[in-house]
Amino acid sequence: MTSSIDRNTATAASPVFDLKAYLKQYQQQVEAALEQSIAVVYPEKIYESMRYSLLAGGKRLRPILCLASCELAGGSIAMAMPTACALEMIHTMSLIHDDLPAMDNDDYRRGQLTNHKVYGEDVAILAGDGLLAYAFEFIATQTQMVSPDRVLRVIGHLGRAVGAAGLVGGQIVDLESEGKTDVSLDTLNFIHRHKTGALLEASVLCGALLAGATESDLQRLSTYAQDIGLAFQIIDDVLDITATQEELGKTAGKDLQAQKVTYPSIWGIEESKRQANQLVEAAKAALDPYGDRAQPLKALADYITARRN
Amino acid sequence: MTSSIDRNTATAASPVFDLKAYLKQYQQQVEAALEQSIAVVYPEKIYESMRYSLLAGGKRLRPILCLASCELAGGSIAMAMPTACALEMIHTMSLIHDDLPAMDNDDYRRGQLTNHKVYGEDVAILAGDGLLAYAFEFIATQTQMVSPDRVLRVIGHLGRAVGAAGLVGGQIVDLESEGKTDVSLDTLNFIHRHKTGALLEASVLCGALLAGATESDLQRLSTYAQDIGLAFQIIDDVLDITATQEELGKTAGKDLQAQKVTYPSIWGIEESKRQANQLVEAAKAALDPYGDRAQPLKALADYITARRN
Repeated sequence: MTSSIDRNTATAASPVFDLKAYLKQYQQQVEAALEQSIAVVYPEKIYESMRYSLLAGGKRLRPILCLASCELAGGSIAMAMPTACALEMIHTMSLIHDDLPAMDNDDYRRGQLTNHKVYGEDVAILAGDGLLAYAFEFIATQTQMVSPDRVLRVIGHLGRAVGAAGLVGGQIVDLESEGKTDVSLDTLNFIHRHKTGALLEASVLCGALLAGATESDLQRLSTYAQDIGLAFQIIDDVLDITATQEELGKTAGKDLQAQKVTYPSIWGIEESKRQANQLVEAAKAALDPYGDRAQPLKALADYITARRN
Repeated sequence: MTSSIDRNTATAASPVFDLKAYLKQYQQQVEAALEQSIAVVYPEKIYESMRYSLLAGGKRLRPILCLASCELAGGSIAMAMPTACALEMIHTMSLIHDDLPAMDNDDYRRGQLTNHKVYGEDVAILAGDGLLAYAFEFIATQTQMVSPDRVLRVIGHLGRAVGAAGLVGGQIVDLESEGKTDVSLDTLNFIHRHKTGALLEASVLCGALLAGATESDLQRLSTYAQDIGLAFQIIDDVLDITATQEELGKTAGKDLQAQKVTYPSIWGIEESKRQANQLVEAAKAALDPYGDRAQPLKALADYITARRN
């Protein structure tokens, strides 16, 4: 309720949608919900480790996409907040495990030491497992004002987006492609549609599912999400080349160093930017039928290509 | 339906409950369901890796406890089979991650090379993640003839049993206790009530929840499950000392080598066996009100203390 009023206040001041104010307000709500989601009890170390990575900042893009999509489909923030938090828990799990020495072996993430550098590899593996399990528990036990059958659809959808048919499958192909200089565009697309795309798409679809969206709504939102997901990754590849370590908060230039096939390595930087912009325009066009109700999601699509980190 | 008829046939031959026949029949059903639960598609390696550990044999104790508990509470095998499979997926995930070099660093499990020895650490980490996510997806999408609110309770319960409040929390304390020779009995109990006990208890409770068990049913089944869970671990510790590597299918004597505090190291072998037997008797007594309907769960309790691997 409050959030709906707040948003009206935020947007009433100007006919142009104020994304900065929107992001600030929604990020604050997500931070507060995440902060409350995990209490530190015995055995403290595992909860501290989970909180260390979960509360390490970040754009909270997935939770915000989920909340915005739920509102577009006629739902409330309160209905979607547990799922929004779960999405960030799952995203955080994937980062913790991805940073492990056996995987990408990264020392820094979001400008801070990675989880295993602080807590050790064993704790980091378990913190990821704990976050993943808790994400599903959190949705199942904390979701209010949504019928159980809808919540079950969300859990089924999210499980698929994280597992071998989604994020994990994308990571496997990414690992298999390491060190290869002849990775095809199809393979690159597969990697990113799964490694990054699946969870972004789930963020948008789960928000809409909670609100009881129709199949045609879900279809449009799926197009939107897939397009921004790929645009997001293209921009990520571009930023790896053009941004500094300080801007990224993580090691820059890793792809070049690893001679990794990326969109810029196939298309060049300018064409990559053009492709990303085209995807963002297509994403926004898919939401035209919703008029002003689509303003937040459209602005979020623009934000993705304009971001600097 | 079939299973119910089969069971009547199996038990009709003798007034004494034939656990061997029961286990064989239920294990076969669980194997068949697990075999069908994961198809190998692109990217094949992740599905092969998940199947490698999931289908590596094992007693299928958790699935069978779940099925037996569901039947005791008036439900059918079909209602509980997706949850039974999910329990084995989660158990398998915990074994794969537990065997990693950063954790217990085990080369053998169930008489076969561990997942990371075959597929590499990176794939093993992801196979565990994939199994964990799939477990929740599987329950949410495959459970039939159970109301969605009951399925949600099962997912909430199971998430808690796996996460920091359950299995993961037990593993953390276990890791912290490594190399310490002054671990208290309270700490040892905490480790095992969480590391092994939580998922065994969830197996029993989730089966009953699916069948719509009452709170007093759940209370009795919880007592049963906690007692057999602890007995199971005590026997595990005893077997680590007394059984050979061939019998165990994994490295024997690891606890002694690691100078790990165990029940036998605190109580000695004979007293450990006595404590385990006492717990099994208490577990069975908790189910007395169910008469013959409790025969499978009671026989399973005996089986736990009599096992050789």
